[in-house]
Amino acid sequence: MQQYFVNGKAENPVTITAKDTIKHMFRVMRLTKGDEVVLVFADGIKYLAKVVDSEAHTFELTETLPDKAELPVQVTIASGFPKGDKLEFLAQKTTELGTHALWAFPADWSVAKWDSKKLAKKADKLAKIVQGAAEQSKRNAIPQVKLFEKKSDFLAQLAYFDKILVAYEESAKEGERAALARELATVEKGQKLLFVFGPEGGISPAEIQTFEQAGAVTVGLGPRIMRTETAPLYALSAVSYALELID
Amino acid sequence: MQQYFVNGKAENPVTITAKDTIKHMFRVMRLTKGDEVVLVFADGIKYLAKVVDSEAHTFELTETLPDKAELPVQVTIASGFPKGDKLEFLAQKTTELGTHALWAFPADWSVAKWDSKKLAKKADKLAKIVQGAAEQSKRNAIPQVKLFEKKSDFLAQLAYFDKILVAYEESAKEGERAALARELATVEKGQKLLFVFGPEGGISPAEIQTFEQAGAVTVGLGPRIMRTETAPLYALSAVSYALELID
Repeated sequence: MQQYFVNGKAENPVTITAKDTIKHMFRVMRLTKGDEVVLVFADGIKYLAKVVDSEAHTFELTETLPDKAELPVQVTIASGFPKGDKLEFLAQKTTELGTHALWAFPADWSVAKWDSKKLAKKADKLAKIVQGAAEQSKRNAIPQVKLFEKKSDFLAQLAYFDKILVAYEESAKEGERAALARELATVEKGQKLLFVFGPEGGISPAEIQTFEQAGAVTVGLGPRIMRTETAPLYALSAVSYALELID
Repeated sequence: MQQYFVNGKAENPVTITAKDTIKHMFRVMRLTKGDEVVLVFADGIKYLAKVVDSEAHTFELTETLPDKAELPVQVTIASGFPKGDKLEFLAQKTTELGTHALWAFPADWSVAKWDSKKLAKKADKLAKIVQGAAEQSKRNAIPQVKLFEKKSDFLAQLAYFDKILVAYEESAKEGERAALARELATVEKGQKLLFVFGPEGGISPAEIQTFEQAGAVTVGLGPRIMRTETAPLYALSAVSYALELID
């Protein structure tokens, strides 16, 4: 069943006010009185909802649904600005794979240089992609999107996390293959994890040092070299496998 | 260092004959006498190689390298024909994630209908993508690409596998979340695994029955609904995590 996110707290009946949502509901899906959808409010609870008035865009909430589709930990994926539209790709795929947030920052070796105007435009686009993907993958929450214009603003956030893992190609080569598994084994439900990924050129040694000083652990993601936009998908799948499928 | 696959057994010196490879080596990379690359032959062993003659396209193999970037099991990803260019996407991404083979077949609910001419063209294109991705991700082998025109030809291959796992959305809903982990725990090194994925519309109940009769186990891939081209990436990442990073 079609799912939509609705701003604010659940109220019954509820009137939809977001233009894009209204358009999808009543133009694209052509919902009429009595049709059912799933509405998800800011608290992440899903409600079965029935159209009361398709002109006034009102719904009656008929029951709560028990569906939980969030990872047991809050994973933030932070990528050095990658080239082209790889962030758009990451927005869709990391949302499907359960990310709590998608961040990007200007890394030392980022080729892409985006000014504040470009960043604001890109963030808007990513927010739309993330919302659509969250609805399709039946998430309970829309991932946060944050594009940092300055690396220092990103680094100022590091203290917020319980664990920082930096995907580092060298780790794989040095036989550090088990570090990710070792770290995930110590994670507790509800903790905040940050995964950091370099841009195409990788993470600079100075950046690695900065992250390590902030308590980060470098982890390998297996022996194959992955593209910058593929590695976060591996990381999120591994978190899901380790924390949702094992035990 | 740039890596290239070379047909046939390793010989020393070796003359490169594949046109695309020659073009990349001497036009794109402009290799000259003494330049080094990595050459990988049919047996999957990597050699450090030095250009002897850039006109004759000959190399001297100077040493073997110990790099192993293959999964400890042979994973075949089989997807019902998906729409558009999703197979091209899967070719690149599943290669990066270690697939042994990428297969596709006309599933009951495939919207895409491809005749033999279209399939042959598509297979050629996929073979090129897979080779490029295997070189970039430093694989020891190029994944096999196989597009089945008839589903019966695909089904005739099922007996070849040690284990068949069918990604089935319903499984996740029925609390079968741990089935994948349970199955991967019993896998032995060198075994042949087949993962089957439906097209956008999913796998039909009749197909599920056919696979189950062939000994397949249905597995869920966590509580989120993934797109048809995302689920195989989760599966391969999970295999890598379970068999390369754990223990």
